[in-house]
Amino acid sequence: MIKVGIVGATGYAGAELVRLLSRHPKAELTVLTSQSYAGKTMWEVFPHLYGVVDNTLEALNVPELVSRCDVVFTALPHGHAMPVGQEVMRRGKRLIDLGADFRLKDVDIYQSWYKTEHTASVLVASAVYGLPELYRLEIKDSVIVANPGCYPTSAILGLAPLLTDKLIDPETLIIDSKSGVSGAGRGLSLKTHFSETTNNFQAYGVATHRHTPEIEQELSLLAGMPVTINFTPHLTPMIRGILSTMYAKLTRNITTEELTERYKEFYQGERFVRVLPVGMLPQTKAVAGSNCCDIAVSVDPRTKRVIVISAIDNLIKGAAGQAVQNLNVILGLPEDTGLDFAGMYP
Amino acid sequence: MIKVGIVGATGYAGAELVRLLSRHPKAELTVLTSQSYAGKTMWEVFPHLYGVVDNTLEALNVPELVSRCDVVFTALPHGHAMPVGQEVMRRGKRLIDLGADFRLKDVDIYQSWYKTEHTASVLVASAVYGLPELYRLEIKDSVIVANPGCYPTSAILGLAPLLTDKLIDPETLIIDSKSGVSGAGRGLSLKTHFSETTNNFQAYGVATHRHTPEIEQELSLLAGMPVTINFTPHLTPMIRGILSTMYAKLTRNITTEELTERYKEFYQGERFVRVLPVGMLPQTKAVAGSNCCDIAVSVDPRTKRVIVISAIDNLIKGAAGQAVQNLNVILGLPEDTGLDFAGMYP
Amino acid sequence: MIKVGIVGATGYAGAELVRLLSRHPKAELTVLTSQSYAGKTMWEVFPHLYGVVDNTLEALNVPELVSRCDVVFTALPHGHAMPVGQEVMRRGKRLIDLGADFRLKDVDIYQSWYKTEHTASVLVASAVYGLPELYRLEIKDSVIVANPGCYPTSAILGLAPLLTDKLIDPETLIIDSKSGVSGAGRGLSLKTHFSETTNNFQAYGVATHRHTPEIEQELSLLAGMPVTINFTPHLTPMIRGILSTMYAKLTRNITTEELTERYKEFYQGERFVRVLPVGMLPQTKAVAGSNCCDIAVSVDPRTKRVIVISAIDNLIKGAAGQAVQNLNVILGLPEDTGLDFAGMYP
Amino acid sequence: MIKVGIVGATGYAGAELVRLLSRHPKAELTVLTSQSYAGKTMWEVFPHLYGVVDNTLEALNVPELVSRCDVVFTALPHGHAMPVGQEVMRRGKRLIDLGADFRLKDVDIYQSWYKTEHTASVLVASAVYGLPELYRLEIKDSVIVANPGCYPTSAILGLAPLLTDKLIDPETLIIDSKSGVSGAGRGLSLKTHFSETTNNFQAYGVATHRHTPEIEQELSLLAGMPVTINFTPHLTPMIRGILSTMYAKLTRNITTEELTERYKEFYQGERFVRVLPVGMLPQTKAVAGSNCCDIAVSVDPRTKRVIVISAIDNLIKGAAGQAVQNLNVILGLPEDTGLDFAGMYP
Repeated sequence: MIKVGIVGATGYAGAELVRLLSRHPKAELTVLTSQSYAGKTMWEVFPHLYGVVDNTLEALNVPELVSRCDVVFTALPHGHAMPVGQEVMRRGKRLIDLGADFRLKDVDIYQSWYKTEHTASVLVASAVYGLPELYRLEIKDSVIVANPGCYPTSAILGLAPLLTDKLIDPETLIIDSKSGVSGAGRGLSLKTHFSETTNNFQAYGVATHRHTPEIEQELSLLAGMPVTINFTPHLTPMIRGILSTMYAKLTRNITTEELTERYKEFYQGERFVRVLPVGMLPQTKAVAGSNCCDIAVSVDPRTKRVIVISAIDNLIKGAAGQAVQNLNVILGLPEDTGLDFAGMYP
Repeated sequence: MIKVGIVGATGYAGAELVRLLSRHPKAELTVLTSQSYAGKTMWEVFPHLYGVVDNTLEALNVPELVSRCDVVFTALPHGHAMPVGQEVMRRGKRLIDLGADFRLKDVDIYQSWYKTEHTASVLVASAVYGLPELYRLEIKDSVIVANPGCYPTSAILGLAPLLTDKLIDPETLIIDSKSGVSGAGRGLSLKTHFSETTNNFQAYGVATHRHTPEIEQELSLLAGMPVTINFTPHLTPMIRGILSTMYAKLTRNITTEELTERYKEFYQGERFVRVLPVGMLPQTKAVAGSNCCDIAVSVDPRTKRVIVISAIDNLIKGAAGQAVQNLNVILGLPEDTGLDFAGMYP
Repeated sequence: MIKVGIVGATGYAGAELVRLLSRHPKAELTVLTSQSYAGKTMWEVFPHLYGVVDNTLEALNVPELVSRCDVVFTALPHGHAMPVGQEVMRRGKRLIDLGADFRLKDVDIYQSWYKTEHTASVLVASAVYGLPELYRLEIKDSVIVANPGCYPTSAILGLAPLLTDKLIDPETLIIDSKSGVSGAGRGLSLKTHFSETTNNFQAYGVATHRHTPEIEQELSLLAGMPVTINFTPHLTPMIRGILSTMYAKLTRNITTEELTERYKEFYQGERFVRVLPVGMLPQTKAVAGSNCCDIAVSVDPRTKRVIVISAIDNLIKGAAGQAVQNLNVILGLPEDTGLDFAGMYP
Repeated sequence: MIKVGIVGATGYAGAELVRLLSRHPKAELTVLTSQSYAGKTMWEVFPHLYGVVDNTLEALNVPELVSRCDVVFTALPHGHAMPVGQEVMRRGKRLIDLGADFRLKDVDIYQSWYKTEHTASVLVASAVYGLPELYRLEIKDSVIVANPGCYPTSAILGLAPLLTDKLIDPETLIIDSKSGVSGAGRGLSLKTHFSETTNNFQAYGVATHRHTPEIEQELSLLAGMPVTINFTPHLTPMIRGILSTMYAKLTRNITTEELTERYKEFYQGERFVRVLPVGMLPQTKAVAGSNCCDIAVSVDPRTKRVIVISAIDNLIKGAAGQAVQNLNVILGLPEDTGLDFAGMYP
């Protein structure tokens, strides 16, 4: 059994990781840390785990943590995974970071968007962007896996075939995303207060959201040229799910049917990307509780634009599930080990 | 007192009209019709109106209806307001149609998007598009007011200043709209079934929604040139509200602050359009239960695009409230007569 | 115009009071206080009031507040209305307290359930329990109106005819109540965090909720004997509304029809209590946004129990609307002044 | 592999059974029938199963169905499982019926509450009530398992220790239950229409719900005397979950702590009943997505009543999960085979 530690086990991504790994046949939950709840059992904080997970939450002690684990997951606000990364590197262990600290290759861009000094910039070069569908070979041998953000996962998977094949003008790209409230975490705020959020819909971070440079970095690599986008996230009155609606001008004539075929080809063999048949559209409920990303494309001949729609469960494919998928890549296991469940509906 | 009739009083838009007009100081609810519930009282169908509205629902008899009323409201599926329009015209009464039958000036476009023959095309020329902020003078003397669709109201009010001032390239316009489920009406379907819709978010009518030509007609008039758009509606797990996020390339440099000022100027004196101060963004809950349209603009200097966000209550400013506003215009009353209430929050 | 002050204007009950009074024809919003938001405008905190209410929020200065107002409303956590009550008494003004400080006649019971010393016990005797349907004569001349709690309003109105007529054995009374989340206020907590509360239902305060002695006090007065109850509140994933399901053994044979008639008689002439016809059951959505309490009774001949169900909007009839109704009683206005609106549906 | 057939695979209980059995290591989905969708694939109707379940839905042909399967599950409206039961009996196969046809031992009571003739009364005697915690030995050898109703599951598990130990006066029992909307099924109705149900709470079937005699039958067996109850179900604006709040007079003094211990003892070794520690209360979200029933007891010394609260996922422990548990009992497998997952939170 592989000994795993989860730093930040009582945030939503961390708790989801605990739930998934508690049923993973090769992983053993060895250390769970929590700043707020150290000393309590996991199930006192998350009653769905009563009788399922017995671990007591611990305060974070980085050296001790790393020494007790083979693989560490960090599910922390940005800035806090850097020291863990350094220790993991020192001891030859592995890190899967669900936060933003190792995603951006350009430390200046990180510092400019996150308003935080990067104190482990030397590690950035050895980190791999943890989107297995694009980078599984690199992930296998990496010390640090930078698990992608939730919005970027939905956007990059949705656009990769178009950019790879140069089917769109990247200059015209617009990404309009809608997220469930769990994406805002378990921290308390008026934005996540039931009575403020229920029956409410709003945009936030217009033209300033921190996932913008992450999306741009990956789209630029796919396009082979710098891509600058408009990305607008919206807060949606539901718990789980991200749906991204993406628009771009096509560079040549292609039908919805042809493009759907191209997507199926691009993602052939991928267990967790489902290109939907023409006539079916993604909906967040169809992926909630699963590690799948559903994608559909529509060509509008009136405007010569393509509209791509993708949907994921932000806590699974957008966070904890993808992290487990990365763990499986690292361990050389089938990628769906511990992830082979259908979503829950309705 | 003005005698009003409401045809289709037991749909959501019709019932909202009943509620609003029951408190209108100059209107008397004279005839309420319902295909499904004729013979029942209004409050048996809508228990919130118990003790508030005593009318018994009637089957529709067009000539009798028109003879008993001064102003008729139709809240019907498309195709069904045409005969009412003809009778109103014949008898010199007034019609405010909340449906789509008289919105499109070009009958061919109507027939092509609605797949329905237009049997009252001669009336179309004498109908006025009932957006008071743009057409109040024409509305005052019109026989038929074509009350705008819910999505078009949010889009046209949001974009009018930009197109009037030629600040954007209309070719680049994208309208991504999100609507509460009440917009789909009271008719039963899986799309509006609680367990399917709750905690779910999805697009529909991608590149094919019937509000597209209505939006294009009005934007073209504002721009003074043909405008073709991408419009994508989404079903949002909330009851009331539409939020539209709109994108276009700017034709010249302008800041968010300058553009906000321009919007305030454009809508000066408008009781029901609230241009929000810089730093505040529309949210559907801030307009729910009111006749207001909230608007904010953001300029993204990285992409030289403007992002306009507008929000309305789809059943009020997007339907029944706007219809009452049109009634007030027709009667020469202050436009907020019977509409002078704040939204309900939370 | 009567000058009114609202202390605690940025809680949900306070903000609802601001909204209602902003449209009251005889009241002028003179002072709005807020501990957290003093210095901001009301609409910066509650965007639905943008363009509706211009007041700037003030820090609380009790003597100054009372001197500037004719009537003061307090919407504060328990314990905080006592000093305001003393100042109001001193200056001969009027107080309507939406909190718990003056509801319980027995100060020992207050201190025991609220774990707080009562520092204004001398005022308790001159306070009137502000349920106009039972106490309107006393309210008219009172200095302090103790506006009832939300749960007690639904319970007492639902049970008053049964106890008055001695139709039930009070010993067997069980009150099972379900409240929307707005009843927990605008303060942040995990219990009111969107992702924890949505799609969740739970009891709280089992056998210990502080509204228990308030309900018992009023039921005992109605019954003419001490009444001890089981009261269980539940948190329901909706914003507004309380529904109480109440059970008791009947003391004599009576049919549902007869009992419904008796209720109609008991509440004859009451504008805000709607006894529903046999076959119709209360639902929170039918009263949301209105000041109504809907009630239905069902006799179960198998068990000889009566089941009473009542529903209110917790923020209106359960708080701010009832406070305005009390204001109207005090001022000798028709009780529905400023409250003559139908609920919002759907 | 055991060949299983699911009759009524496109209702919510049926679809949940498909999802669960698709991951069951010993079951093979051999026949899925659907009246409305025969000829379509399962995933066209339920998109979460795209790539997970490949079966095509079939029209029901009872003899053929039974001949192709080892075990048949029926998830049908009452009255429709009887012919399947007869055929299963004839051919020596096994039936697990998720409907009501074989739950009531007394056919007259069935006919009186369900207003339907029972055409297979001879089978009733050989059917076993499928609550494994009470009847696992009988289930193992039964031809027909009558899978309990959702409300009865929550009520019976919650009350079994009290009645077994004669700790309460059964005469005083009141069961106040709250269910998510998925319990009303996938059939369309205004009661399950999103805009009517969201933000709404209401009782239904007051004193007349068909689960009443089922609960009474089982409680009477436990009590060793006839038990007549008041049972009130409520429709709650959430998808999954039932929470029952139950009240009864205690027959002797006992503390919350002692009673909790007694419950733990009673349910010792039960994988799917979680008696919560004192201080923790059930909530539907803690069991959603799992096969668990959470229970807590509170003794109120003021009234000498016990309040028992239990929570289940109505589609899992209240339907499909319990059916799989029964399958495991029949097959002699560990009861959590295919059910060994934690609930999904948040």
